[in-house]
Amino acid sequence: MEVVQVLRMNGGLGDTSYATNSLVQRKVISMTKPITEEAITQVYRSVDAIANRFCIAELGCSSGPNTLAVAAELLSIVHQLSRSHGRQLPEFQILLNDLPGNDFNSIFHSLLPQFRAELSQQMGSKSAPCFVYGVPGSFYGRLFAANSLHFVHSSYSLMWLSEVPEGVEKWNKEEIYIGSRSPAPAINAYYNQFRQDFHTFLKCRSEEVVGGGAMVLTILGRKSDNAASKECCYIWELLALSLKEMVSEGAIDEEKLHSFNIPQYTPSPAEVKRSVEEEASFAISRLEATEIRWADCGCGDSGYESYDVAKCMRSVAEPLLVEHFGESIIDELFVKYQRILTDRMSKEETKFVNVTVSLIRRG
Amino acid sequence: MEVVQVLRMNGGLGDTSYATNSLVQRKVISMTKPITEEAITQVYRSVDAIANRFCIAELGCSSGPNTLAVAAELLSIVHQLSRSHGRQLPEFQILLNDLPGNDFNSIFHSLLPQFRAELSQQMGSKSAPCFVYGVPGSFYGRLFAANSLHFVHSSYSLMWLSEVPEGVEKWNKEEIYIGSRSPAPAINAYYNQFRQDFHTFLKCRSEEVVGGGAMVLTILGRKSDNAASKECCYIWELLALSLKEMVSEGAIDEEKLHSFNIPQYTPSPAEVKRSVEEEASFAISRLEATEIRWADCGCGDSGYESYDVAKCMRSVAEPLLVEHFGESIIDELFVKYQRILTDRMSKEETKFVNVTVSLIRRG
Repeated sequence: MEVVQVLRMNGGLGDTSYATNSLVQRKVISMTKPITEEAITQVYRSVDAIANRFCIAELGCSSGPNTLAVAAELLSIVHQLSRSHGRQLPEFQILLNDLPGNDFNSIFHSLLPQFRAELSQQMGSKSAPCFVYGVPGSFYGRLFAANSLHFVHSSYSLMWLSEVPEGVEKWNKEEIYIGSRSPAPAINAYYNQFRQDFHTFLKCRSEEVVGGGAMVLTILGRKSDNAASKECCYIWELLALSLKEMVSEGAIDEEKLHSFNIPQYTPSPAEVKRSVEEEASFAISRLEATEIRWADCGCGDSGYESYDVAKCMRSVAEPLLVEHFGESIIDELFVKYQRILTDRMSKEETKFVNVTVSLIRRG
Repeated sequence: MEVVQVLRMNGGLGDTSYATNSLVQRKVISMTKPITEEAITQVYRSVDAIANRFCIAELGCSSGPNTLAVAAELLSIVHQLSRSHGRQLPEFQILLNDLPGNDFNSIFHSLLPQFRAELSQQMGSKSAPCFVYGVPGSFYGRLFAANSLHFVHSSYSLMWLSEVPEGVEKWNKEEIYIGSRSPAPAINAYYNQFRQDFHTFLKCRSEEVVGGGAMVLTILGRKSDNAASKECCYIWELLALSLKEMVSEGAIDEEKLHSFNIPQYTPSPAEVKRSVEEEASFAISRLEATEIRWADCGCGDSGYESYDVAKCMRSVAEPLLVEHFGESIIDELFVKYQRILTDRMSKEETKFVNVTVSLIRRG
């Protein structure tokens, strides 16, 4: 678990040290809103316990503008449903999970008062009690009491593996993630690690989610069956190119680059489906792949789309890069990276793929 | 709630920016251990739900060596009880509450790994899952889901009022807390605020604690029926003396001193009993007053008992003093305070009184 721990502690993809990063998340949340709405409505209709208590977990909650965004949306939907069914409002528990290095102080001190103010403005005095807790720990282990959750949400967190897969360092010298020059054993090691981690994730959640409860998970992924497909690997290949330029300039030791690998896996819908079916506790109610153009990563203020993409990727990769190469190479690396991105983005249509799966706990 | 909010956010009595402060707490926890043990044993025998899940709340948890101390003790007792009764271990939920300004990051990042390591060393592989959450908010409001808690613990937090009582500023010019020169309306205002706050506290907890569940609360208090008794007021009267010296030296404006009051109330066992009986949801199984000598505030390393007491009181009062008088007077004030303490402690036997009450939720 160590690598992810370091990653998230220092601000991984789920963190929001960079505004562009939270902007991508915000877009994904907005794109998946119909799926979330459908799932929560289904849960509301099928779970008896909701009469008293409705428990929502946000996994990889980070500490930015999106931390409580989905929870706020879910609360609003349950309020509407309760009103239209003439049922009493439940008490809400919102469990915000991230690794122990996440800035929970900032959530409690800054985001929570605003969330509560907006809640009471929206719902008025009829708002039900809403308890918000911080839950530190890796979601590749148990985090919640058995049979306690009604709804689990996670966005842009589950592509992070618990660690760089064993053997990858040996086989994947020419790439920093799966890439066009990755040999089969490297690709297999990455996939097997994802399968193992995702199985553990599903197993843990299956103990925690009540029968009829739901999970909506969005994972950075791919559409193609080929794990080395450009749609998921290109962004990292271009970063590898920038690192190689620095090797050729003597700023980075070649051996150091050979031993650097990103603890990530971008699954296809078919792979997600296979894992869910293998673990068998959850039924798939929806499985979709959507796209976001690289160019839409930023708010467009900079006037340079490649700048926004570089900034976004920097927020994701910097902690890992600093850990491995040290602080000193970073600025120069991202200057090179942006130059390469400018060139490629002017010639090609480049996109991120999101795989969203909506699951219902059987039984 | 504002005053307590400021107080605790900046490190009130429950915080542990000063080691002496946590030392007093540690002593209190150790003194009340038999009461805690008795209460948890009673809960274990009477609550069915424990077969599956055992939920403990620590109110005013702070972020120091005592944050998880009682939880660790309780876990150990439940482990022993389960073993001796041949019952399956429950899953544990530990809910750590303090005001939103508390340093939860430090709990999650530093204290929790150590807690988990000690737990797994003590219990071995047979240890049950133990989920630790951070719960930001004032305990003078609802914090937890209805009927969800089995055991509530709080030490040295409930003497803090939600605010300086109305009218006190007008009536209590000569004192900073209740003192020998406080008129009856000031004393009544303090007591009424305590009654109101403690009633709210009990009402909120009565909704959250399951029938047969327990609370063990230790409050800085007094033995005497007289709220202006020296045993609870003297420590503040000496601080007031130091402040007055600074007024006479022109370092503090007299009006400023007149408007300064500590949002605290040190109840007697009889007052605690009365509030519990009035609210009626809990039955008292134990009510005790114990003493700690001022001289035992420190670890004794300094060789100056008055230094330890001044340091301890500084950790408690500094945030309130800074808020009201500004940063600049603090060092000089505590030099004066220590000088006065040295004099008085050499002539008199001075003690703090703790009121500990053990309660069982009726029904």
